[in-house]
Amino acid sequence: MVNVPKLKLNNGNEIPQVGFGLWKVTENTADVVYNAIKSGYRLFDGAFDYGNEKEAGVGVKRAIDEGIVKREDLVIVSKLWNTFHEKERVEPITREQLKWWGIDYFDIFYIHFPVALEYVDPKDSYPSGWHTLDGKVRQSKASIQETWQAMEHLVDIGLAKSIAISNFQGSLVIDLLRYARIRPGILQVEIHPYLVQEELVQFAKSEGIVVTAYSSFGPQSFVELDWDKAIKCPRLIEHPVITEIASKHNKTPAQVLLRWATQRGLAIIPKANHPARAHENLDSVSFDLQPEEVQAISNLNKNIRFNNPPDYLDKTLYIFA
Amino acid sequence: MVNVPKLKLNNGNEIPQVGFGLWKVTENTADVVYNAIKSGYRLFDGAFDYGNEKEAGVGVKRAIDEGIVKREDLVIVSKLWNTFHEKERVEPITREQLKWWGIDYFDIFYIHFPVALEYVDPKDSYPSGWHTLDGKVRQSKASIQETWQAMEHLVDIGLAKSIAISNFQGSLVIDLLRYARIRPGILQVEIHPYLVQEELVQFAKSEGIVVTAYSSFGPQSFVELDWDKAIKCPRLIEHPVITEIASKHNKTPAQVLLRWATQRGLAIIPKANHPARAHENLDSVSFDLQPEEVQAISNLNKNIRFNNPPDYLDKTLYIFA
Repeated sequence: MVNVPKLKLNNGNEIPQVGFGLWKVTENTADVVYNAIKSGYRLFDGAFDYGNEKEAGVGVKRAIDEGIVKREDLVIVSKLWNTFHEKERVEPITREQLKWWGIDYFDIFYIHFPVALEYVDPKDSYPSGWHTLDGKVRQSKASIQETWQAMEHLVDIGLAKSIAISNFQGSLVIDLLRYARIRPGILQVEIHPYLVQEELVQFAKSEGIVVTAYSSFGPQSFVELDWDKAIKCPRLIEHPVITEIASKHNKTPAQVLLRWATQRGLAIIPKANHPARAHENLDSVSFDLQPEEVQAISNLNKNIRFNNPPDYLDKTLYIFA
Repeated sequence: MVNVPKLKLNNGNEIPQVGFGLWKVTENTADVVYNAIKSGYRLFDGAFDYGNEKEAGVGVKRAIDEGIVKREDLVIVSKLWNTFHEKERVEPITREQLKWWGIDYFDIFYIHFPVALEYVDPKDSYPSGWHTLDGKVRQSKASIQETWQAMEHLVDIGLAKSIAISNFQGSLVIDLLRYARIRPGILQVEIHPYLVQEELVQFAKSEGIVVTAYSSFGPQSFVELDWDKAIKCPRLIEHPVITEIASKHNKTPAQVLLRWATQRGLAIIPKANHPARAHENLDSVSFDLQPEEVQAISNLNKNIRFNNPPDYLDKTLYIFA
């Protein structure tokens, strides 16, 4: 079994540095989760928006029932979707999501985006994505402070062990830290060699916030969604800088991309469609890049953000502007 | 007299598209302001932090006393410094700044940075900059919402006609718009061909917020401060793309840089040390660039931000991360 390093959050809780991302896991989710647990994964990064929490919960239950792990060995992560930012909506949807997973607390619960959208009943549309039933993107008036206070209440009543934020810019994190009674443990953002985000990473570190990188393979994560910007961008896993380092270490380009992230101190949550790939991702911590290799990879930075809402929402939500 | 276009704010008030920036005006400020009024400037962009509000007020008074303009012809702009973000500090320092200017209202009053710092008494240090008296950078807990509500109160009691924000990232503006009872009229940020900020400009436009560009000449504004990053960067006023367009139009490179901004719909606030230069800046609205010239200039974008606090504050304030 791979010995995965742990990262300590500012409340003393620990998370494995490599977890399993459930975004875009659409088929056989229960088996995928169950097999990932068998191959050593302990953190599962889910979300309302991924639409697979019930199935993921089935996989978790099977592993627990078979005695492979105990609930307390797992770090189960989910996220509050944009349509539930009003304070009175946070607790009910969290309870609903916990029911789907079949658990009674989340280890980590995120605000998924700093975007408040008009409520959509999950009974009418699940997952509802960015649009109301009539196809419009409609913002709501819930401030981040309002939502964060409701998140803090989740900790108070034991529904979440740690709370966290995703897709926040630095100045918005700074503002949140001014009024936070419970500080966010993790900031999850898109990071890969085309979007290095060195200043944001340094800032989070200076504030004692762990950073989780998503889309570690860069364009790869978005090619499957048929996104033009990603399709047009040279693949990182085929980039000569990456492939040369990979062959020098006798590792795969994917492992080099993941190790680049974990050596920067980041947590990662790659998805894998096959058990062999899942093992390979977990095993990426078993070798070390040279500092100059880490730097050479960082030098690929182009400040390209693939998960940029205006690109897929008709220029309406400039949350990263 | 140059006919300067006006931009209408979301509360109906108007501002001239070209104003005079008082940052780094350290000598003969009263004469500089007086002469600028004589040459046609009507907007003066000041701030507590610029340390010259009394002197600027002397220049304004002279022009009014001589009947060159009336108070209501002028748009007098100032800014709340970082050390006054607590709600109880906003009104007193605004009254103090108005006293310095010798006027009884500001046309526009900004939050200068989305940064709340520990209070420093202006009697002990003026302008106090980013550091407390012992040389430390110490943040305070005043949230942007707290400060904004105090800014709204300035409008309620007539000390400011319009309120505005400077150096805010998109997601922080979005959050402010959720709780703002009075929307910001203007967003003032660093913009030049090395930092085009197209998405932020589009976002502001979509929200009905006027954008004022500062440091229109790019590195030039910071070379006088001896900033390494600016010194090492090729000057925009000597850049072949700019100089070629300038000679084609028989204008100066500086005028091309300013016209690029105003043709994008931005307000500008160049500083000038000499009356001839002040006139030249104002006169930059008297010719038009071709759309393909505007685009060629925008293509110089390098996402270089010169006014980046971590660069000059020992890596403490990542407000643009």
